Amino acid sequence: MIPSSDTPAPPRPRPEAAAIAAVREGLEARFGNRLTTSLAVREQHANTLSWAANQPPDMVFFAHDVDEVAAAVTLCARHGVPVIPYGAGSSFEGHTNAPLGGLCIDVAAMDKVLAVHAEDLDCVVQPGVTRKRLNEHLRDAGLFFPIDPGADASIGGMTSTRASGTNAVRYGTMKDNVLALQVVLPDGRVARTGTRARKSSAGYDLTRLMVGAEGTLGVITEITLKLQGIPEAISAATCPFPTVRAACDATILAIQSGLPVARIELADAAQVQAINLYSKLGLPETPMLFMEFHGTEDGVREQALRFGEIAAELGGGPFEWATAPEHRTQLWQARHDAYWAAMALRPGARTLATDVCVPLSRLAECVEETQRDIAESGLVAPIVGHVGDGNFHVCPVVDPDDADEARRLQGFLERLVDRALAMEGTCTGEHGVGQSKMKYMEREHDAASLDMMRAVKRALDPANIMNPGKIIRL
Amino acid sequence: MIPSSDTPAPPRPRPEAAAIAAVREGLEARFGNRLTTSLAVREQHANTLSWAANQPPDMVFFAHDVDEVAAAVTLCARHGVPVIPYGAGSSFEGHTNAPLGGLCIDVAAMDKVLAVHAEDLDCVVQPGVTRKRLNEHLRDAGLFFPIDPGADASIGGMTSTRASGTNAVRYGTMKDNVLALQVVLPDGRVARTGTRARKSSAGYDLTRLMVGAEGTLGVITEITLKLQGIPEAISAATCPFPTVRAACDATILAIQSGLPVARIELADAAQVQAINLYSKLGLPETPMLFMEFHGTEDGVREQALRFGEIAAELGGGPFEWATAPEHRTQLWQARHDAYWAAMALRPGARTLATDVCVPLSRLAECVEETQRDIAESGLVAPIVGHVGDGNFHVCPVVDPDDADEARRLQGFLERLVDRALAMEGTCTGEHGVGQSKMKYMEREHDAASLDMMRAVKRALDPANIMNPGKIIRL
Repeated sequence: MIPSSDTPAPPRPRPEAAAIAAVREGLEARFGNRLTTSLAVREQHANTLSWAANQPPDMVFFAHDVDEVAAAVTLCARHGVPVIPYGAGSSFEGHTNAPLGGLCIDVAAMDKVLAVHAEDLDCVVQPGVTRKRLNEHLRDAGLFFPIDPGADASIGGMTSTRASGTNAVRYGTMKDNVLALQVVLPDGRVARTGTRARKSSAGYDLTRLMVGAEGTLGVITEITLKLQGIPEAISAATCPFPTVRAACDATILAIQSGLPVARIELADAAQVQAINLYSKLGLPETPMLFMEFHGTEDGVREQALRFGEIAAELGGGPFEWATAPEHRTQLWQARHDAYWAAMALRPGARTLATDVCVPLSRLAECVEETQRDIAESGLVAPIVGHVGDGNFHVCPVVDPDDADEARRLQGFLERLVDRALAMEGTCTGEHGVGQSKMKYMEREHDAASLDMMRAVKRALDPANIMNPGKIIRL
Repeated sequence: MIPSSDTPAPPRPRPEAAAIAAVREGLEARFGNRLTTSLAVREQHANTLSWAANQPPDMVFFAHDVDEVAAAVTLCARHGVPVIPYGAGSSFEGHTNAPLGGLCIDVAAMDKVLAVHAEDLDCVVQPGVTRKRLNEHLRDAGLFFPIDPGADASIGGMTSTRASGTNAVRYGTMKDNVLALQVVLPDGRVARTGTRARKSSAGYDLTRLMVGAEGTLGVITEITLKLQGIPEAISAATCPFPTVRAACDATILAIQSGLPVARIELADAAQVQAINLYSKLGLPETPMLFMEFHGTEDGVREQALRFGEIAAELGGGPFEWATAPEHRTQLWQARHDAYWAAMALRPGARTLATDVCVPLSRLAECVEETQRDIAESGLVAPIVGHVGDGNFHVCPVVDPDDADEARRLQGFLERLVDRALAMEGTCTGEHGVGQSKMKYMEREHDAASLDMMRAVKRALDPANIMNPGKIIRL
């Protein structure tokens, strides 16, 4: 297991029992059993997909609207009790752990799509709406929300972690697709951080300050999102390459030449091997790219064919592509199964999903060095990458009871981050910091930037009640 | 003239003469005549394109590198002297005025393109590089920087005002195109707000906090920008429409259907009339759209033809389009001349360029109500719009010596902002707040959001030395 020293205690005391009791009684009086102290519920809300030790909150409140969230935060502010916002619980880095206890506010029931403005290509949703449900809701209007992190995450959580995923190369990340937010501030007041205008120069960008703040500056209670028209046509394609470098070079050439690729995903040879085992396929066990193109019928054909030419120049092939939905699904099946295929490599083992991001020109080098490191560390760790962004995931599959393997894993993770930072990259492209990557913040950011972050946090949450012990050591 | 009550004094005293002298002597000793107190230079740096009264700084320093900027800011911090960053001086809202005097730091000589990373589609520039010079520099590499606010603004200034312009509908605004910044903080320390990774979830988004902060949180000394490959082909098009609404509806349909239009500009009938007079053209004096499409040869042909079909459905036409550079230039000439044509409507008069932005579905209504208001106010004020974003400019042409006209103008400007805000829009889509739009901040943002902005400003610049008296009343 990852040593618990990874999750330092935040610099404020745990609240007194009386403070916890005051919040509990206040919420119970008003909301009855929507405030629970059940251990099972608390543990489930603490930490689902992370390796960090489970640190449950003292209580969980299932909120139904912004007024209830504001009432709960106000009560917590009065008594100095930590507040941990909770959406779908699909984050990876211990974001929802409660190292100081406190109140977890579960917003999953705030799952209404409040408005869809088709002419403006935007919508307003509550934070508990998941991306899949949103896209089901939008389908009849001919619209879609492009950010796809894989998991059926909540929009609130995706906003809080600055999520992105497979479509980001074309449509950007949450940072680029949130127009405005409604937020309950640490003092319980409700703020709207923007309007539905597509752009504004009217003051500090509070929206972007909240996007990626991981619940440390407030609780997001409403999100206004940009939408896209469902493309008239989609083409999908796959192409094996002799090396990771050839696959990356093909990606660079495609993007440089303005090919508006919507998704371009890399699976390394280890990942393809895992997929073959899991899905009983016979793919060539070399690095492979999965692509998707969005546009008109003619446009997506042209894009696919152009990419095929670029791939051939770099020794890739056979290049396969399709526009019919069933054939597209078939081509992408292997990519969709990647996570489960990795898990299946060692039944009973645990996986840890981590991510780093580097400039595109350094991606091949970073992935290849990482592969060597994996081999030298004696680990099993397939790699998949959002290669158009220089972002890749390593998914070590580890025996949780093998202390030596855990030690080797820990060393590998440290080197992975150092490697990305040395290549002008970042310790996380899309998963966020949470607890588990806090220690890397000092490596990635200079002292003056860290002080800026601390100053902002202290200014907006002077009592440090909002998700304490996350992102940055105060 | 716009009453000077528009520009309230910021809540801190003017520095003592001794403090000014200490900064002046310190900089003179080190930099000689790169520190100047010439009145002409000071007035030129205060306020170039705004109607706000000229408020010159006490002195102007021509900085050559980040160390010099840091030295100057450190000195100002020690003595409590205001710092006003200055790039090309092309901002509209009194951003560079010095209501409390202080030191203007002119970074125009920091005009180096420090690095171009063609494979990563990014570059690193100093703040004094102008966008035209950057694009000249990039041309041979087959790259371009898409943000085009019209003026040949400096990249530092464009970053500070969150500028955008004609290409934003396709390529986003400065917010979307700045990867990272180097900033001299109000205490003189130098911070880097990000890396060259295309995306990151590693902590608060300091980059976006600085973009649009108008120099109130620090001096930008280096900018890492996203770039685009120069498209293989460009098509340009124009189309007159019977009404503003028909032009806006055509735009909405095009965007909804996923047509990746690169520029789509509206000129209203008054603007077309002005163009006809100025450029001796015979355009039909009805609302007109100017478009540009970027892509492959086939792609831009398809896009232009599709738009032509949409325009015809909505009663627009004749639709003209071209791909040859000289023909494209000819089609767009009228749009390029718009500002000069407006100026020429009343020789000797002054123009005021203002902007608001509303959701696209409200744009036609907002423009039409604004046109009625212009007529009823007895003003001359052509309108051009970045119609794909819902952003439009009104360019009143006013006799500066006519007090009654100035009064009518003032009332009109107030109503323009109120109209945009009532339609879920913003008081400025791209020009920024500066001094002149400070009074609208309370109308646009709720009290909690304004308090967040104040808290951030106070936390990062507790002595309020950075461009005081801009954006927000403290």
